[in-house]
Amino acid sequence: MSPEGYAPLSTETVAARLAPLPAVAQRLGGGPADWTAAEVGDGNLNLVFILTGPKGQLIAKQALPYVRLVGDSWPLPLERSWFEYNALVRHAARDPGSVPEVYHFDRDQALIVMEFMTGHRILRRDLIDGVEHPGIADFLGRFCARTLFLSSDLGMPTPERKADLALFAANVALCDITESLVFTDPYWDAPLNRHTSPQLDPLVAELRADAVLKVEAQHLKSAFCANAEALLHGDLHTGSVMALGEHAVVIDPEFAVYGPMGFDVGMLISNFLMAYHAQPGHESTPGARAAFGDWILAAASDIWLHFADEFSALWRTQRTGILYPPKLYEDQGQILASEQALTERLAAIWTDAMGFCGVEMHRRILGLAHNADFEAIADTDRRAACEARSLRLGRQLIRTRRSIRGMDEVCALARRIDEGFA
Amino acid sequence: MSPEGYAPLSTETVAARLAPLPAVAQRLGGGPADWTAAEVGDGNLNLVFILTGPKGQLIAKQALPYVRLVGDSWPLPLERSWFEYNALVRHAARDPGSVPEVYHFDRDQALIVMEFMTGHRILRRDLIDGVEHPGIADFLGRFCARTLFLSSDLGMPTPERKADLALFAANVALCDITESLVFTDPYWDAPLNRHTSPQLDPLVAELRADAVLKVEAQHLKSAFCANAEALLHGDLHTGSVMALGEHAVVIDPEFAVYGPMGFDVGMLISNFLMAYHAQPGHESTPGARAAFGDWILAAASDIWLHFADEFSALWRTQRTGILYPPKLYEDQGQILASEQALTERLAAIWTDAMGFCGVEMHRRILGLAHNADFEAIADTDRRAACEARSLRLGRQLIRTRRSIRGMDEVCALARRIDEGFA
Repeated sequence: MSPEGYAPLSTETVAARLAPLPAVAQRLGGGPADWTAAEVGDGNLNLVFILTGPKGQLIAKQALPYVRLVGDSWPLPLERSWFEYNALVRHAARDPGSVPEVYHFDRDQALIVMEFMTGHRILRRDLIDGVEHPGIADFLGRFCARTLFLSSDLGMPTPERKADLALFAANVALCDITESLVFTDPYWDAPLNRHTSPQLDPLVAELRADAVLKVEAQHLKSAFCANAEALLHGDLHTGSVMALGEHAVVIDPEFAVYGPMGFDVGMLISNFLMAYHAQPGHESTPGARAAFGDWILAAASDIWLHFADEFSALWRTQRTGILYPPKLYEDQGQILASEQALTERLAAIWTDAMGFCGVEMHRRILGLAHNADFEAIADTDRRAACEARSLRLGRQLIRTRRSIRGMDEVCALARRIDEGFA
Repeated sequence: MSPEGYAPLSTETVAARLAPLPAVAQRLGGGPADWTAAEVGDGNLNLVFILTGPKGQLIAKQALPYVRLVGDSWPLPLERSWFEYNALVRHAARDPGSVPEVYHFDRDQALIVMEFMTGHRILRRDLIDGVEHPGIADFLGRFCARTLFLSSDLGMPTPERKADLALFAANVALCDITESLVFTDPYWDAPLNRHTSPQLDPLVAELRADAVLKVEAQHLKSAFCANAEALLHGDLHTGSVMALGEHAVVIDPEFAVYGPMGFDVGMLISNFLMAYHAQPGHESTPGARAAFGDWILAAASDIWLHFADEFSALWRTQRTGILYPPKLYEDQGQILASEQALTERLAAIWTDAMGFCGVEMHRRILGLAHNADFEAIADTDRRAACEARSLRLGRQLIRTRRSIRGMDEVCALARRIDEGFA
């Protein structure tokens, strides 16, 4: 399966192996003997090294031919690094500065050498620790709008879009993870599932018996599989965002694939809402995290508002693709026809996003890959109480996604669930 | 642009050039000196030869590097032959006997050698001449259900589906024709457009000023471009069907691409409805074609019914793909959950189909490529009267596609328009 010559890096070998690359030597300064390497891959899939030299630092991320979390019993193609690289390059072009700069890519070694974000932390950690990030919602909403709009037939030449559609269609193995672990496994007693037990058992049984919920979840899966609107990040949760104060970047787009625009937006909002529901589990005294919870809900709301704002701005100024061409609307003096189309497109993205938001909540609590937000709550009674709120909110969002109208209603619903199931 | 060695065939050269192929020699019998060739390409894009030998006949279809209808000022990639070949092979596997058998394919020559359908005529010609075809609706409904279901994530292994998605995503040039000429050009005063003038001028102006209609048309275009549910034929009108009595085949899938299931179904129904509206233009005495018109409407209705029947049967027995897996429904004793999902999927296909049906009507009357059904009506006043009914029906279907519930309502609407605008 692995390309000939592929060899995993180690803290012992990484300096010597990267030394011949001018992009590396130049940024680190000195020679390989002056460099130190630390392995910091805390994710599920890859090796990640920080290299430090006299002049600077950088990241070397190398895919392993199996799922690190599970071991070599679960092989996973190295080729995912190729998709991650291609997504990083496109994200950088569409929203400059939004992702780490790529210094070097080696397809055979499944290796990306890229910018080290000095001082940045994974956003999820800060949401657990109660650290506010002003500007984060603005950044994330804008990132979604730009990367999605500009990779779609709204803002990209169609022959290039179709070439990219074909390129990322080969990202089969990682899509399979999403298709199975996100959309299907949480809704039946799949072998890889786990949940906080026995506390959640009755609610889990209720969800898995809910026929309407399971039909909706598969409608959403169908949209994820078929509706190739835009290049998705594909795994845009708060663990894929690094932030420092007002600055942030998005990392780890190895799940990149063409899919529905609402997927990235919905997953992002979902992880903020779960962080909100996890707050009571992190507080030392009752109510200690109330203000931070308010901030999280406000940020979740603002993600959508900034997304819609930026999407609308792009619609009005950079709609150069084949869809909704101005010659049918603005050029005929029918500006409101263009605005009508925009309103209806945003409504469709919103409806999708609410559905994906709900599914993401379920899979993070019932499936294989859980959230640190909840996992960090050691007391399982407290954790289950927090998780149950997100499970209920997720079901409600999936069911009402065609009717619920805005983040105000979503936040009110999240708070109502707090009160109703305190 | 053309591959090295590509050379168009002619009636003089085709026998000698195909003689070395065993599949050809064996079917025709004798030698090339015994074979006669006739060029019968009446379409817009290709050379089509009938070769006749002592033992049998066959078709040799070769793409030209330009649009035959327009000339070499409009280049069109030979590669479309590759997509046609790939679609034919898949259609044959998914609905055996539904397409001509392919004997030989030569990618460099953009040449498909295939079965000659003895005695079969283009269905559109028979609908103009008043010839009924019992069983045609059954055949066409089943063809759509099988080719669409079995090329989707409902009935096909996903890695193979994604490989096919990528393969057909390269069919950029022919998709561009659909994207531009079907969904956009009819709705503004595009240079290639034509319509029966001056009779239709006021109605055409009304349609092109209809903001809601133009927004809906682009929503449908967006679905065509992005919603890669299944492998479409892509040009499934009555000119792409050959019939003889109760037997029929589908030809010319060179527009094949992954798209929304409703596209093929809607285009097909649309061409039956246009044939219905064209009947008064073909009759020698008023009412002479009334009974045949009734037959056409019944056939249009039956296409949908047979499609839904076959799709439902496949859903219940061959749903082996990743979507709506039985382990969530039937295996949990929730058969009605599976039926609910089926009902909702069919409803979504129906809503799409009604929209595509309306757009097809508009582009066939206002765009570049017109229907022989209307074109054969020499008297422009009579022709315009027929066309106006289809234009109105098309707009109504596009506008009410989310509410109209079945072919009974569609047929009643078609008749109501006859009465209201006699």
